[in-house]
Parts: sequence; structure tokens; C-alpha cells
Amino acid sequence: MPVNLKPPVPAELLPVPGVALGIAQAGIRKANRRDLLLIRLGEGAAVAGVFTQNRFCAAPVVVCREHLQGGAIRALVINTGIANAGTGEPGLQAARATCAAAARLLGCAPAQVLPFSTGVIMEPLPVERIEAGLPACSADLREDNWAAAAEAIMTTDTLPKAASRKVSLGGTAVTVTGIAKGAGMIRPNMATMLGFVATDASVAQPVLAQLVREAADASFNCITVDGDTSTNDSFMLIASGRAGNSLIVDAACADYAALKEAVTAVAAELAQAIVRDGEGATKFMTIDVRGGRDAAECKAVGYAIAHSPLVKTAFFASDPNLGRILAAIGNAGIGDLDVSRVRLWLDEVLVAENGGPAASYREADGARVMRQAEIAVRIDLARGGAQAKVWTCDFSYDYVKINADYRS
Amino acid sequence: MPVNLKPPVPAELLPVPGVALGIAQAGIRKANRRDLLLIRLGEGAAVAGVFTQNRFCAAPVVVCREHLQGGAIRALVINTGIANAGTGEPGLQAARATCAAAARLLGCAPAQVLPFSTGVIMEPLPVERIEAGLPACSADLREDNWAAAAEAIMTTDTLPKAASRKVSLGGTAVTVTGIAKGAGMIRPNMATMLGFVATDASVAQPVLAQLVREAADASFNCITVDGDTSTNDSFMLIASGRAGNSLIVDAACADYAALKEAVTAVAAELAQAIVRDGEGATKFMTIDVRGGRDAAECKAVGYAIAHSPLVKTAFFASDPNLGRILAAIGNAGIGDLDVSRVRLWLDEVLVAENGGPAASYREADGARVMRQAEIAVRIDLARGGAQAKVWTCDFSYDYVKINADYRS
Repeated sequence: MPVNLKPPVPAELLPVPGVALGIAQAGIRKANRRDLLLIRLGEGAAVAGVFTQNRFCAAPVVVCREHLQGGAIRALVINTGIANAGTGEPGLQAARATCAAAARLLGCAPAQVLPFSTGVIMEPLPVERIEAGLPACSADLREDNWAAAAEAIMTTDTLPKAASRKVSLGGTAVTVTGIAKGAGMIRPNMATMLGFVATDASVAQPVLAQLVREAADASFNCITVDGDTSTNDSFMLIASGRAGNSLIVDAACADYAALKEAVTAVAAELAQAIVRDGEGATKFMTIDVRGGRDAAECKAVGYAIAHSPLVKTAFFASDPNLGRILAAIGNAGIGDLDVSRVRLWLDEVLVAENGGPAASYREADGARVMRQAEIAVRIDLARGGAQAKVWTCDFSYDYVKINADYRS
Repeated sequence: MPVNLKPPVPAELLPVPGVALGIAQAGIRKANRRDLLLIRLGEGAAVAGVFTQNRFCAAPVVVCREHLQGGAIRALVINTGIANAGTGEPGLQAARATCAAAARLLGCAPAQVLPFSTGVIMEPLPVERIEAGLPACSADLREDNWAAAAEAIMTTDTLPKAASRKVSLGGTAVTVTGIAKGAGMIRPNMATMLGFVATDASVAQPVLAQLVREAADASFNCITVDGDTSTNDSFMLIASGRAGNSLIVDAACADYAALKEAVTAVAAELAQAIVRDGEGATKFMTIDVRGGRDAAECKAVGYAIAHSPLVKTAFFASDPNLGRILAAIGNAGIGDLDVSRVRLWLDEVLVAENGGPAASYREADGARVMRQAEIAVRIDLARGGAQAKVWTCDFSYDYVKINADYRS
């Protein structure tokens, strides 16, 4: 049961001129489901991305990094079912063959195609099914196809994830629309599990590369479901350049700031949608850490809480067993943390201070907040001015069920 | 259901001369259960310990560190039910009051008593119940009381944990007996969740301090259940000095080596018992990492695997979804790891090499090993001569059930 997440309304997903999407059923792992997506970009589009830091990164991630060096990207091919990770040299060949097949179809070079895969690790990618499915994708290419595309990239997701924003750049209306997938093996590190955001803004390539990093850091890089960084995480930002705004050539201008706000808003909505649809999730928690010496130590505290199975099961049970949060803070690796200065709130309820329960704290107040579906865990480390947020979900029977059953 | 773990046979737990144990029902959190243990040491006993690195360490840990500075320890008091952690200044007062009560009873100074607590965090310790229960502990003091003591320190443990060894030091027979508790919030870091090992060997204090660190590193510091380092982890080594061996005054002698082997064997058996009784455990895994540049990176790989909820649920399901292990290895933080050289085995089955599945690997072989209750996960990083082991268990519905229900 996703937490306060609804399927996107197709009519509310704004088409991005210069970006067309086509879907097919290729039977990659299971029959009768949409599992192949082709995204075709018009000439002049700029593309930038960030990828997983997992050393066992997937073959398509390796090929994407190569092809992005060359620029002039014209297409993206995304399959679900098989991750094409932990597949060695044959996996690289399969990813390259995918690019070649799309290139033949679209009349471009294989190096102008970016491949993406998600699904089971260490199983071979049936590239012949992708080759057989791509013509149907091509026939389906439409600019108003975002809702179907969001559905085509799902694995253990229970709902598709998509978001749109409009923003004005120097009087020119610009669209930002994106899709993402992911529910488990979610702890993006510099990137995420398949997120694609497109805008029709004109953005110079180096500026776009900066924008994708900044947007990822404020969205996908703030979420975790289970702490497992995927082999395939990829977050791509496409700028088709069709809106007619003045080309954004540096990050110091107002247009950059306005576009960044819109892109980050779309990316954050998608990232939070992944957590809301986290495997087995019943609660959505925002861990808001303030008063740190730097953002890194605030994030370390946020992740120590968000990754603790004991904290996550207490949230599942709506049990205000909040000493587990103190224990997690104590484990965040801040060697000189003065725990007597740390304060902890659930929403507006002050839970702990002076190294123990707050004098004003009543368990009934903690229990009331714990029963909510959306909970803010707020921490003041009282040692500096930095802050960071982490979004996460709880840990339920269904997480175990989903991951004990997945593949079968 | 603990994995291949039986309750200790009382007659097989060898008494340690100079170490007497007494148990009582103090009603600290629940009625009608043994929850208070007093250990009385004869004069001349040496005691050394290691403690949790959690910054929110419990009040008794703070007091133990203080009292160990003074030496001449005569008693240990251990309660379950309440951890006396996250309790601020009142918690420190309660730990000191516990020591004072035991000191009055035994005729020693409060600073000669070490307090230990385990249970729920951030709730006040009912010290008056400890004071009321201690006379019954005192009346129960016996050297052959180890089995009852092991039971008295349990929390979510399903079975008591105890072990004994005999070793000959220069022709003198020496005994080593220990008890431990723990099932959840288990990822000891320099120490563990309440382990007490006693020997009648004569060991000089600085040598004993070295021995407890070395034994902890080869036992409790190799286990994890859920990655949550407790606020109360404490591993104490007691040397009563009654055996009549020549006093061990340095770590370079054969007696030290022999005693270390026996102490480490007892500590490792206790540490493995904690994992076998890990909350909800159905499988016991040994993660054996070789070929690292140093032991630290081998341990990092071992813990990355042992903490991955996806790996742990796959073991629970007996599903050879072994790409999840590769993904965990890739997340261990070794930035220059050449994944094409990494090899992975399950027991004797070679699963992966050259960045993908081994040519000889058949899923039926992986599935056969995954069905076992005891599984060795072996990894060769092929970049050095270092190695490390981590012992862990799987992740089942019952882990969630136990931790969603605990406290209630």
C-alpha cells in the first residue's frame, strides 16, 4: 500500500516539445506487460545524467557514461525485468546491441543512444527480444505518452510515478516533466534508480550537467528505502531546447535559478513517490536534521535513523519506542557528539533533551504522532548551522514478503 | 527458531573458582521472571572490559568506565528489562545507586561494583526494585550457577547462551566460562551486548586488558544481526587468579597464547550463539572475505553483505538471487575495486567471476546450498592477502514481528 500516492493523471503530465515516447510489450522477463520504452529526442537536445556509485554498476551504466562523452544524444532505450548488471562482457555486448538496434531504427549512430535496464541482477539480457520490440515502440512514439512511459518502467512499484511543472524563463513558458521508478534496493548515491526528467528549455551542456547534479542532491540523493544502493541507478535530465527561451549558458542567472527550482520540484516529487511506494511501506517519514557542523554529518544522522531496522519496525508498529532513534543518532559516526545537547521532536512534540526524555514528554503525545501516515522526525544537534533532510519509509512484513518472493 | 543452538547443559558449564553468581526476580519490567544477576568476585580478581562506541551510551557504561579506572572490582550487577540508556542525569544516579546498594550488601566500596543494564531505551530504571532484589541475589550466590545466570540476562533471546573451556597453562588446569545475551540491536563495535567471561587464571591487569580486546575483535566484533549498534554493549573478562598458574605478565608468552585461544573460543561460541538466536533467524551465514588489501576492507565487504536487507531476505526465502550479493559487494565503499577479478562462492559452489555468473554455475547448485541452515558465503577480492569473517543471520517475517511487538 503506497503512502499518500496516487497514480499520475495523464492529462496533467505536460508534453515536452521535442521529446517523444513509445512503449511496447517485449516479453523480457514476463509476458503481457509493458516492459520496453523508447524516448526519441529532437535534434539539438542536451542530455546530462548522474549514475550509481556501486562498483558492480550495470553494463548499461558503463555504456551510458561512454556515450554521454560524445554528446548529441538522440534516443534512450529502457527495459525492465532484467538489470543487465553482474553480467560481465556479454552484458556489455547486449547493451551495445540494444543501442545499435535503436540507432538503425531511428537513423542515428549507436553512440547517440543511451541504454537503461532495471530488474533482476546477474541474469542475461535477452537482447533479441529488445530488438524485436523496438519497432512497436517506434510506432507508438508520441509526445503525450508520459503516463504510459511511467508504467512501462515499473518493477516492484505498485504505482507509476510522474510529475510536471511549468515555469517562466524571461517571459517564455517552459515545461518540466519527469518519470521515475523504484521501490526496493533504494539508497541512491549521486543518482537514482531510473529517473528521467525532460524540459523544453534551452540549456547549454555544462550548465545542464551542473543542474542535474544539484537537482539529484536535493531529491533522489535524499531518499532511502532499504539502504541498498542499486547497480543501475541513473537520473537523466533532457533539455530539448524547443521552448524558445534564451539559451542558459551559466548557473549564475535568474533563469537558471527558476529552472532549477522547477526541475528540483519535479525530481523531489518523483523521489518522494519512490519512498511512498517503498516495498511494503505504510508510513512516510521526513528526517530533518539541523544544527550540524556540515551537511554531511546531518545526512549521516538522517541515514543512521532511516536505515535502522529497529527504528523502521517501530514506525510500522506505531510504537513510540523512541529510544531506538537516540541509539541510531549515537551510531551515526560523529565521534565528538555531545548527546546532552541533542534534541529530538516527532512533529511538534519534543521527545528528548539533556540526554534523556524531555520533562514535558508524554507517551500519549508520541503515540498520537506515531499513528499518522506522515511523520516528521526532527533533530537539533546544536553544534552548527548546517542541515539536511532524508525521506524514508517504515519496514513491514510486506517488505520481507516482497523480497522473499521477488523473482519467483 | 534459533539456528542450530541448544540451551547450555548446566553440568557442562564449569565453575570458575573465585566467581559466584546469584539470581533474583526483581520485577524490573515484567513480573515472575529472573531479571537480576549479581556476580561476586573474590579478592585479587582482575577485570577488563570493552564497551559500545555508541555516543548515546548507557548510564551503566559510563559508570563502568569510571569504576574500571580504580581497579579492585568485587562485584557486577546486571539487570534486564530496562537499558538505562537515553536517561540523562537521573540514569547516572540510578546506576550509582545500584552500585551503592550492592556495595552495602557485600561490604566493599561502590566504586568496586560494575553496573550493567539491558532492555528498553529511554525509560527510567526502577532502582528501588534492584535494591529490593539484591539480597535475594546475595542469598543465591554459588559458583555453579552459570546456567541460571545465562537465563537471567536474556531479553528477546529465545535461549540462554553459555560456554566453557579447560586449558592447561604450564601444567596448571585453568577454566574459562562465559555467558552472553543478545538477539536484536546487534552490531557490536569494539564490544558487545553483555558478554561476561571468567577464568581462574592469574593474569596481570594490562595483559588482561589486551586479551579482552583481542578476544572481542575475533568474536563479538565479527557479528551482526541488524546493524544497530546498541547503547549498552559490554564485554567483560574476569580473571579470578585462583587456578595457581604463574601470573601472566606479558602477551608474548605461550601461556598468553593458550589462554587467548580458550577465551576467544568461548567468546566466539557466545557471539555465534547470539547470531543463531538473532531475532527471527532461520539461517546462520559465515561471510568469509579473502584477498583484501587489509582486514578493514574485508570487514567492510562482509558487513555490506550482512547488512543488506535484500541479501538477508533472499537467504530467508532460500532464493539464489545472488546478484544481490554482488550489488552489496559493490556498495562496500572500495572505490578502486576491480569487479572483474572478484569471485564469489556459496560453500564450494563458484557463483560469480569475471564480473558475471561463472560458466560452471548452475542455479540448481546455488538453490541446494541456499536451502541449508548453515551457509558459507566466500569472496575473493583478489587484491591482497588480508581476510576477515562476519557472522550473521537472515531477515524474516519474525524479525519484523518481534520488533514491532517488543515493549508491548
